[in-house]
Amino acid sequence: MAEEEAVRVLGFLPSPFALRVEWALNFKGINYEYKDEDIHNKSPELLKYNPVHKKIPILLHGSKPVVESLVIMEYIEETWPQSPILSKDPYERAMSRFWAKYGEDKCIPALFGFFTKQGEEELVESLKTLEKGLNGKKFFAGETIGFTDIALGWIPVWLKISQEILGENLINEQTHPLFYAWSRDFLDHPVIKEKLPPYDMLLAQCQAVHDRLLASSKP
Amino acid sequence: MAEEEAVRVLGFLPSPFALRVEWALNFKGINYEYKDEDIHNKSPELLKYNPVHKKIPILLHGSKPVVESLVIMEYIEETWPQSPILSKDPYERAMSRFWAKYGEDKCIPALFGFFTKQGEEELVESLKTLEKGLNGKKFFAGETIGFTDIALGWIPVWLKISQEILGENLINEQTHPLFYAWSRDFLDHPVIKEKLPPYDMLLAQCQAVHDRLLASSKP
Repeated sequence: MAEEEAVRVLGFLPSPFALRVEWALNFKGINYEYKDEDIHNKSPELLKYNPVHKKIPILLHGSKPVVESLVIMEYIEETWPQSPILSKDPYERAMSRFWAKYGEDKCIPALFGFFTKQGEEELVESLKTLEKGLNGKKFFAGETIGFTDIALGWIPVWLKISQEILGENLINEQTHPLFYAWSRDFLDHPVIKEKLPPYDMLLAQCQAVHDRLLASSKP
Repeated sequence: MAEEEAVRVLGFLPSPFALRVEWALNFKGINYEYKDEDIHNKSPELLKYNPVHKKIPILLHGSKPVVESLVIMEYIEETWPQSPILSKDPYERAMSRFWAKYGEDKCIPALFGFFTKQGEEELVESLKTLEKGLNGKKFFAGETIGFTDIALGWIPVWLKISQEILGENLINEQTHPLFYAWSRDFLDHPVIKEKLPPYDMLLAQCQAVHDRLLASSKP
């Protein structure tokens, strides 16, 4: 049975993308081994299993590698159908994928732009748009955590870190109340709470990334 | 039955992304109405059904709008299971999604960079990588056209147009033989052949886009 093959995740702590994969596996109660990669000194295993992009995360299921975190999440959903993270309804599934993709296309560059002091307006706007996606619901697909929440759940964590590093309070409960209510409910779920990166370690690593990025952008 | 609701596609001829949607519908034998939008003068309908991105393509199924072409393709596959474009095997599905995403992330900017004379090396490389994805197969998932082929099938068409406009022959049967063999087999399929944009009209529209882009980039 494919389901009984060993599962491994290759990740890198300061990157949120392996966290999605771990959250999805934990939701479904799948045991796996996590290996933290040094992306400045990539292991032969990383290069072997993601020869095209040479990036984490990588899910190894037996000897089969799956890469790209949203593709991995679809794979997890299809391989282990327990505790589904996507509705059975094609239209609801499309909406879940739409908002997950919105996070990739808009929120990632917006938060990165904020983090590297290139601008903050896009971040304000993209999180306002996410609030419209919630549309009065507790989570993106309704009353329970699903695909979109797991895909976007890194945002409040990395936003908090970014605002602490920059000493800013741009996005807060007053400016984005629905986003904060969602963040609280999401991060408060036992499966998510149990699998959050250690805050101080993440802060230190992100501070180092921030300093390196700003140093390299100076003329 | 949801399947009997009217289907409409909002597209824009010089953009390849509605074509994917039409190809997928045609593969499954779904009747639909196509409406060409003027993206410089967006219709109230376009703004209503894609308020977040205000972009084509839009699939309207009854009153339900689905946007983002790859999300639409997943919706089509799930709503009309006949003539499947994704395997039933989760790993093969993941591979199909991986290569479709590769096209989005790498081939689109590479072809755009070539088209606007910002560089050609990325295009050469990204199409070489696509050849590795074929890995000796006729189509990306094997002997028959599937999700990845439909997602990437715009590339040979717009590449030909781009090379004609630029008067270049950078990518050809000698440099990229496997890509060309795949292109030929794909474009020769009766469903695809019947639904290709009129070449001269597409050339004229892309020429206009090209002239406008180069004029606006001049200092």
